[in-house]
Amino acid sequence: MRHTNIFIKTRKEYPRDELAKNAQVLIKAGFVHKEMAGAYAYLPFGIRVLENIKKIARDEMNSASGQEIIMSSLQKKETWESTDRWNDSNVDIWFKSELKNGTEIGFGWSHEEPITDMMKNFISSYKDLPIYTYQFQTKFRNELRAKSGIMRGREFVMKDLYSYSKNQKDHEVFYNKMIEAYKSFYEKVGLGKDTFVTVASGGVFTKNISHEFQTICDAGEDIVYIDRENNKAYNEEAVKESNIEVSKFEKVKTAEVGNIFSFGSDKCEQMGLMFMDSDGVNKPVTLGSYGIGITRVMGVIVEKYADEKGLVWPKNIAPYHIVIVSLSKDKEDKVYEESENIYKAIKDRYEVLLDDRNMNAGSKMFDADLYGIPLQIIIGDKSLAKGCVEIKNRQNGEVVEVDLKDVEDKLKEILLILF
Amino acid sequence: MRHTNIFIKTRKEYPRDELAKNAQVLIKAGFVHKEMAGAYAYLPFGIRVLENIKKIARDEMNSASGQEIIMSSLQKKETWESTDRWNDSNVDIWFKSELKNGTEIGFGWSHEEPITDMMKNFISSYKDLPIYTYQFQTKFRNELRAKSGIMRGREFVMKDLYSYSKNQKDHEVFYNKMIEAYKSFYEKVGLGKDTFVTVASGGVFTKNISHEFQTICDAGEDIVYIDRENNKAYNEEAVKESNIEVSKFEKVKTAEVGNIFSFGSDKCEQMGLMFMDSDGVNKPVTLGSYGIGITRVMGVIVEKYADEKGLVWPKNIAPYHIVIVSLSKDKEDKVYEESENIYKAIKDRYEVLLDDRNMNAGSKMFDADLYGIPLQIIIGDKSLAKGCVEIKNRQNGEVVEVDLKDVEDKLKEILLILF
Repeated sequence: MRHTNIFIKTRKEYPRDELAKNAQVLIKAGFVHKEMAGAYAYLPFGIRVLENIKKIARDEMNSASGQEIIMSSLQKKETWESTDRWNDSNVDIWFKSELKNGTEIGFGWSHEEPITDMMKNFISSYKDLPIYTYQFQTKFRNELRAKSGIMRGREFVMKDLYSYSKNQKDHEVFYNKMIEAYKSFYEKVGLGKDTFVTVASGGVFTKNISHEFQTICDAGEDIVYIDRENNKAYNEEAVKESNIEVSKFEKVKTAEVGNIFSFGSDKCEQMGLMFMDSDGVNKPVTLGSYGIGITRVMGVIVEKYADEKGLVWPKNIAPYHIVIVSLSKDKEDKVYEESENIYKAIKDRYEVLLDDRNMNAGSKMFDADLYGIPLQIIIGDKSLAKGCVEIKNRQNGEVVEVDLKDVEDKLKEILLILF
Repeated sequence: MRHTNIFIKTRKEYPRDELAKNAQVLIKAGFVHKEMAGAYAYLPFGIRVLENIKKIARDEMNSASGQEIIMSSLQKKETWESTDRWNDSNVDIWFKSELKNGTEIGFGWSHEEPITDMMKNFISSYKDLPIYTYQFQTKFRNELRAKSGIMRGREFVMKDLYSYSKNQKDHEVFYNKMIEAYKSFYEKVGLGKDTFVTVASGGVFTKNISHEFQTICDAGEDIVYIDRENNKAYNEEAVKESNIEVSKFEKVKTAEVGNIFSFGSDKCEQMGLMFMDSDGVNKPVTLGSYGIGITRVMGVIVEKYADEKGLVWPKNIAPYHIVIVSLSKDKEDKVYEESENIYKAIKDRYEVLLDDRNMNAGSKMFDADLYGIPLQIIIGDKSLAKGCVEIKNRQNGEVVEVDLKDVEDKLKEILLILF
């Protein structure tokens, strides 16, 4: 893609009305726009990162037999009253409004209730189970404070999967499969080595078992104790409840990047989602829910990897793999010609951005660093006189001068070592 | 894809709480679920159709230099007050709510204002223009009545593009390019021959010029006069305003499936979106907006083509191209084996659904018709004894018996004549 064909504009400074590092850098780089505290628009580069993260999540969910659907944001009062989660004293993050006829409605902050209610149309026999449905849904949560950029939005994108199983045993098999799918997701988006599964209590969702996925991150709101030797982690609640000896563990700040819940059969029983089992007995369905805050994950990645020059993206979610920084000032010169040659040679194999803007070298290099695209090919007079270009690894800052004929081999080599 | 791996369940009857044909058939076929009047969930087959329509729209917008972004649903009061469209007496379809601190917010029913407001950060010089941004956005509209199924939702998906141009002349070039892009879109989704561009007044959007795209459809809410000879159409307002002689024209019921608006420079002037032109003069930007109700288009297609047996999809948006109706009752029999063989032979070339459910022949054929997948390959004992299978064209109902060795050629042949 040619830069001149893209809607993006960087800023020289961070925005002054933004406290969170992730939103500061993303706005400076032209990836997102702040509509209000906790609500952001995603511009072309931002949407590319978001879609890359969604694709990785989608592939993992599909591999685990997940079925993509999309529920409505508009929510009926009665559905949530059946589990006593409509009342603001129980759930204090509802955005509510009303229809013209005065009927109260809510905007979905979660979807266990409506999807479980819907399943009454689809589940009546053990032959209908299991069902694993997921969606990428815009959630609305009326957060009292929304100061963490895209890490905690009043409006944000979540991947939420709901599992409906015949019994606890089947449920657990799938639940454990999801833990593996989640691990694979965090690995692929570039958070693998710093993300840990912790046992935690269910909070507003359930009194039953749940797990959190916590990523080491200074901007995080949680504290966990990491037992690296056994690859385990404990949150403070678990430490207190189980009297775990933490003196040998690392105490770190973390951000929750996912959570999964076992509801047992309580919620389905409460909502009347029953099925006739093979033994002829009518039983409540066993429910699990599995969430990943997609936009939050993007925010955590920015917090962890961005440096003083700007964004740094893991290769699988970067808006482009490679940016060609063409320092040409003239469409007739050798630099222009060579930039075009390299662009054409590699653009079908990689996602490549050609910076063909009519701007000075300094501004282009400033923007290339700010965008955080993992590989830069810098083409200027000086190197070209030697038959070379520079290749920069944005992740570690290393720059190498490479002979024109070796460019493709070198790209391959560096792509392999990128995270 | 194997049917047994998909979350879908058809009904024997239409739902009783639904008035609109489109939603009745979609619910009966298991494509959508009704959450409340005007708010529907899309299940796996429904989401496939929706994504196919979105992909066609996306490709058209990208070909016309459109840039995909996604704005927020949450809307600031001040942004809309600047054009006097916050007040319920001017715009009566807002869903409004409030933040914890009492600040009023709205849920986006359109996005001209927020996107124009955002552009103040990106447009200051003629060098920044033109910009063509679009999104697939969930819109919320508090409709008094919502009785048209997915054709008129309180929550629905819209493709909306906004063009920012230097002057009226540049604007008009792009505006006309959009008319062509829209025509191409309707052609590809299967509405081409019955969709007409009409000149209409702007309604709530603008007093300036606008065009509607109207599709002949009994469930539509509009009336237009079609001059087939000159491939033109006029709505009633235009006929009245311009005293057009309509006696020779066809008077038909239509559904609006798209609309495009020229705002001139009024709105940008009102909102303060100015740019320094090459002549050194500060001028307001010229705005256009271009909408397609994606879910509405899906509804119109159902209304037009569904018959007494169920859905009928145009080939480009069908959830699958081909369904293999395997009438096997035993995993050891010849029918099972041949169904698997054909599935494996064609599944990499087409989107193929293999109905491998353990059900009787009648139910499978009932569902295949109901799903509306354009091509059915019916494999049963009787034909197979002759070394044949049946191929059914769901669009015209024709069934041919085809020798096993000729299946692939016949599929190709019929796919060519499908709309």
